[in-house]
Amino acid sequence: MKKIVAAFVLSSLAGAVFAQQAIKPETMIKYRQSGYSFMSWNMGKIKANLEGNFNKEQVIAAANVVAATANSGIGMLFAPGTEKDIGDLKTRVKPELFQPQHLDKLKEVAGNFNREANELARVAATGDVAAIKVQFGKTGGTCKGCHDEFKKD
Amino acid sequence: MKKIVAAFVLSSLAGAVFAQQAIKPETMIKYRQSGYSFMSWNMGKIKANLEGNFNKEQVIAAANVVAATANSGIGMLFAPGTEKDIGDLKTRVKPELFQPQHLDKLKEVAGNFNREANELARVAATGDVAAIKVQFGKTGGTCKGCHDEFKKD
Repeated sequence: MKKIVAAFVLSSLAGAVFAQQAIKPETMIKYRQSGYSFMSWNMGKIKANLEGNFNKEQVIAAANVVAATANSGIGMLFAPGTEKDIGDLKTRVKPELFQPQHLDKLKEVAGNFNREANELARVAATGDVAAIKVQFGKTGGTCKGCHDEFKKD
Repeated sequence: MKKIVAAFVLSSLAGAVFAQQAIKPETMIKYRQSGYSFMSWNMGKIKANLEGNFNKEQVIAAANVVAATANSGIGMLFAPGTEKDIGDLKTRVKPELFQPQHLDKLKEVAGNFNREANELARVAATGDVAAIKVQFGKTGGTCKGCHDEFKKD
């Protein structure tokens, strides 16, 4: 049962596409953490631009990383075997992410993030600072929305 | 002198833009490693697609991550203070990356990667598998070109 649910979660998050790579669970955890970490740097750059001297090209580049990460199928990296710490490798994912009764919520928060991240890239390209500020807030809100549900403090 | 050189390296890699964030050296090392790690997952996905069932959308998404990472100004994360391990945090960067006599080579390999990564995203969008294979090889070659010069084994 667990496997079927996991497959459904993955297909929901990543479309109908499955990774064709054979990746160890610990490598999956590292990869997903790297994706979120690098995205965090890029969100931080956008924030710094909105609070300081605004450089349109830097904001576009950063927003493109956020959108590309959202579109990358990062949900595939939450496969069976990645629910818990593996040796010294810690994960802050909550067990709820892998539980069928939370699947609708997972799809909702993942979908929200995808939508707003892509909209952020679109709005960044316009260079409209006020609009970017609004959309940056919305995007950050969808990060928090997922963290609240599926990430330990 | 060191500081001036570093500033020149950064401006060369990242255009005239400097990060407006105050980031600790150890955080910079983590961020740059996360960028390369997540890119590695995406290069691996493209490779798996070229060797197995080709899914155009997955390849486009992965190539967009590679290009967005190349365009992100990741070179900014090689700032003074990030030349060496910091406590338990290891870096495999070679000291040469921070040395003025290697600056031309650094600009060359960084420029090669940027150019080929963006070309990979462009070619991926066409869905031409043979062309993507060629361009994937070129892009991987520029990764290796930089690693050979500036990354310890």
